[in-house]
Amino acid sequence: MRVRLQQINGIVGDIRGNVDAIMKALEDARKEGIDLLILPEMVVCGYPPLDLMERPSFLSAIFASNEDLIQATGETALLFGTVTPNGDHPGRPVYNSALLAHQGKCVGKAHKTLLPTYDVFDEFRYFEPAAEREPVEWAGIKWGITICEDIWNNQNEGQYHTYRTDPAGELMEKGAELIVNISASPFTLEKPEARKNMLIRQAKRLGLPLIYCNQVGANTELIFDGSSTVIGSDGTSLLQMKTLEEDAGDIEWKSGSLLPNPVKQYLFPDKQERLFKALVIGLRDYVHKSGMPEKVVLGLSGGIDSALTATIATEALGKEQVLGVTMPSRFSSEGSVSDSHDLANNLGIQCLELSIKDAYTAINEILEPVFRDTEFDVAEENIQSRIRGTLLMAISNKFGHMLLNTGNKSELAVGYCTLYGDMAGGLSVLADVYKTDVFALSRWLNTHYYQKEIIPWPTINKPPSAELRPDQKDSDSLPEYDILDGILKAYIEGRLTANEIVALGYPSDEVKRVITMVDKNEYKRRQAAPGLRVSSKAFGSGRRLPIVQRWHEPI
Amino acid sequence: MRVRLQQINGIVGDIRGNVDAIMKALEDARKEGIDLLILPEMVVCGYPPLDLMERPSFLSAIFASNEDLIQATGETALLFGTVTPNGDHPGRPVYNSALLAHQGKCVGKAHKTLLPTYDVFDEFRYFEPAAEREPVEWAGIKWGITICEDIWNNQNEGQYHTYRTDPAGELMEKGAELIVNISASPFTLEKPEARKNMLIRQAKRLGLPLIYCNQVGANTELIFDGSSTVIGSDGTSLLQMKTLEEDAGDIEWKSGSLLPNPVKQYLFPDKQERLFKALVIGLRDYVHKSGMPEKVVLGLSGGIDSALTATIATEALGKEQVLGVTMPSRFSSEGSVSDSHDLANNLGIQCLELSIKDAYTAINEILEPVFRDTEFDVAEENIQSRIRGTLLMAISNKFGHMLLNTGNKSELAVGYCTLYGDMAGGLSVLADVYKTDVFALSRWLNTHYYQKEIIPWPTINKPPSAELRPDQKDSDSLPEYDILDGILKAYIEGRLTANEIVALGYPSDEVKRVITMVDKNEYKRRQAAPGLRVSSKAFGSGRRLPIVQRWHEPI
Repeated sequence: MRVRLQQINGIVGDIRGNVDAIMKALEDARKEGIDLLILPEMVVCGYPPLDLMERPSFLSAIFASNEDLIQATGETALLFGTVTPNGDHPGRPVYNSALLAHQGKCVGKAHKTLLPTYDVFDEFRYFEPAAEREPVEWAGIKWGITICEDIWNNQNEGQYHTYRTDPAGELMEKGAELIVNISASPFTLEKPEARKNMLIRQAKRLGLPLIYCNQVGANTELIFDGSSTVIGSDGTSLLQMKTLEEDAGDIEWKSGSLLPNPVKQYLFPDKQERLFKALVIGLRDYVHKSGMPEKVVLGLSGGIDSALTATIATEALGKEQVLGVTMPSRFSSEGSVSDSHDLANNLGIQCLELSIKDAYTAINEILEPVFRDTEFDVAEENIQSRIRGTLLMAISNKFGHMLLNTGNKSELAVGYCTLYGDMAGGLSVLADVYKTDVFALSRWLNTHYYQKEIIPWPTINKPPSAELRPDQKDSDSLPEYDILDGILKAYIEGRLTANEIVALGYPSDEVKRVITMVDKNEYKRRQAAPGLRVSSKAFGSGRRLPIVQRWHEPI
Repeated sequence: MRVRLQQINGIVGDIRGNVDAIMKALEDARKEGIDLLILPEMVVCGYPPLDLMERPSFLSAIFASNEDLIQATGETALLFGTVTPNGDHPGRPVYNSALLAHQGKCVGKAHKTLLPTYDVFDEFRYFEPAAEREPVEWAGIKWGITICEDIWNNQNEGQYHTYRTDPAGELMEKGAELIVNISASPFTLEKPEARKNMLIRQAKRLGLPLIYCNQVGANTELIFDGSSTVIGSDGTSLLQMKTLEEDAGDIEWKSGSLLPNPVKQYLFPDKQERLFKALVIGLRDYVHKSGMPEKVVLGLSGGIDSALTATIATEALGKEQVLGVTMPSRFSSEGSVSDSHDLANNLGIQCLELSIKDAYTAINEILEPVFRDTEFDVAEENIQSRIRGTLLMAISNKFGHMLLNTGNKSELAVGYCTLYGDMAGGLSVLADVYKTDVFALSRWLNTHYYQKEIIPWPTINKPPSAELRPDQKDSDSLPEYDILDGILKAYIEGRLTANEIVALGYPSDEVKRVITMVDKNEYKRRQAAPGLRVSSKAFGSGRRLPIVQRWHEPI
């Protein structure tokens, strides 16, 4: 039996488009003599559909498409992820399901048991869990069909809680001859290896071969990496598909086991490459799938965040689609303008230069009666940032270009950014990338990826500054970035207590200061642009905190 | 036995402050000869703590406080809501629990079974559900102790799904002599009656008296109304405590039943009064509990939304704490400035007047090389709004006043508002109030509450306009507000399909137009200020939709 795994880049809510893509994949598979085509979790409606799941019309359209897909099968069988009704039974109205169809009939069905409800996942909000699990018998084989979280067992690091049920183990005990897992498992930088190691452990624990098919592409904040794979019962990799690209891979089931596919054994891209690819696909899919005009606009400050964002945008959309704007003030260094033009030249993108001086003067004059006898402070700093936001949004509104936000995770974490100013934008490309990682990726792009200066070296080498007052440096207000990012990673991704962070070797006054900044800036982040998620704990829907609260980490 | 219900206004995360309030309530109860004091759900940590629940230090502090509270009990017993550990058992790490303590010992315990995971609720994210339910025997009585959702059964309207378990019914079958429910049940305009009717139905169904104690006060977006009550087994109201105010009420258990408390039978405030009280308490608690300086600033446009917001702010914080700013442009009517001053005079608040003309000119001159040969459009309109946002935020930054957003639900729904302009603010007071309800409340305030003109009648009577271009009216861009709000309510709160809304009698082209506007403006709402929730479906954490998606309601 020839089995194909296909990692499809679906669009949330685009049921018709997704079904067309599935039909095409099925037809291709049929032509090529494939016996079974396996597709990812919820491929019919795209993942995550969030509260679209509460719309009866949306569910009806999915159910109708399930029937269409079942009826479209002939000699090539199709295993696909979708949503199915719970009927009039008590509980939530639908299941997260896998349907196996062959010769126009549904020949097998499995519902998801373990419903992730942590971080960005809300599956208990929508789905009824499977009450029981049975292997599906088809073509003389007992298939142990599982969906995403079902295969993640209780021995994983960093988990939020344990489960009482072990779906794959139960299926093995009930005679499954192999385990299939269809997933919509989001990317993080560490995920490809962590996930594959987990799958290898599971295959060995169960003593069964394991077929794993994962979604690829980005939907709003979430990026999916594909990386679909097949693991032998001894833990060997029989097939490894591409990471962060659409791909299909074939494998053969013969005499009770899966044969290796030696030509399809992709290595995971290294850390910088995968970060870059993820941000590129994240930005590209955000723009393409929105159906917006494809042009983007962004402010170029001469700093590294905007330079990296412009580079990612150019890679994702093409140089004709990216408009940079440099907006010097009286506090801008000469380098901030010239570095911006150098960047634009290197990328081949257009760069406008608009001085904000006159607008800054006009705003200050309006406020003069109110601000008389006060000192220059953060109010005047933020005015500059908000004038820039106003100019960028005016260009966005006039020409339909989406404004890209250029902030990084370090500044978003501690609130070193201006609401409605440099926090403006339709998408924040670097919202989940710490400043130290922004530097590392920028260096890697020049040195390894482009092998020439794209991001101007002066931009990379000068000390970071917001340039909102004379001779300002980020380090006036913040710890050095290696210290800051170390504390932030321990607090946010590591979810360590303040005292545990101190035990890592960071000074307790710095730990306290940083954590206090993070906690009290929740109100800013609540209004931040959506950001591409590349870590295990991004700001946004996966990190939900009250704005009004009085908890302070003991230290 | 004398039983007291006390609806406490706790602060999320303020474990020490909440414990102090509980200790004081316990001491008061002891002095007054109360045998049992009943407090709301999760009173120790405040509700909802959201992802603070994932912090080990936070949980440790709650567990330690549980012990302190247990040990503080003497002759007066205490039943309180809190969080308790699940130990090393599989599943989520904690329970949402009720503890009954007496004479320094824990004499009873119940865990929540039904964990709401819909709308604003995420309880499956944090809590393990109770595996079994047993009445608590104490003082010769079998107490059926339930927590919030446990008492909401499957016959309620507008529910998201049904449950397989009926905790109160099970406790009755196991011999409970009365049902106690401790809650953190958020307010909506319809909730007080709906909840009480449900409790009456439950008491009659079970044939048992029912004691219901609910949290009061606001935490970030959520407002809790208290409205604690005691219902006899025949469905009569034995006690009805205040709505939207702190309160305590006593009742007596004698010879196997509860005696009525005739002096404590508050009526629910009528619709306008409860909306006003809810918004006032929502705003007041947001500011007070944040520990921010108590002053607020807001733009006064001469329109009804900012006038109502200023009135609510003055009621909540006092006239000295509210600063209005009127910011005329070349498109402002004369009335917009004079109505703003009249409002400020009526309220006794300060009102600054800052013309945006010169800043508008300066911004346009900066953009002239880019915008040359384009027509005046939404870009220029939004520039005005963003200059106002910049001025207001400058005042906020300079003096520490929180900016109040003055937008209403109708405009937020259809995106008739400017990101980073009139959408700016730390809190949106009217984000969950439709325009037609803004009008109704404003009229009621003048006519019934203040019984004089506070909101200038010209503000109420003139046609709504954004005044961003000559002779602009809202009705140029939107359906008339009664039509618009009718469609919006059916779509958002009613969760009806497009075709169901048409069946209510709305023209299908208007329905399609409005729904399309709602769906495509998700990106704006994702960056909106947090808003006070007063309906069953507010924008914000209770309505989660992808920004990038292609579903269109069939019509």
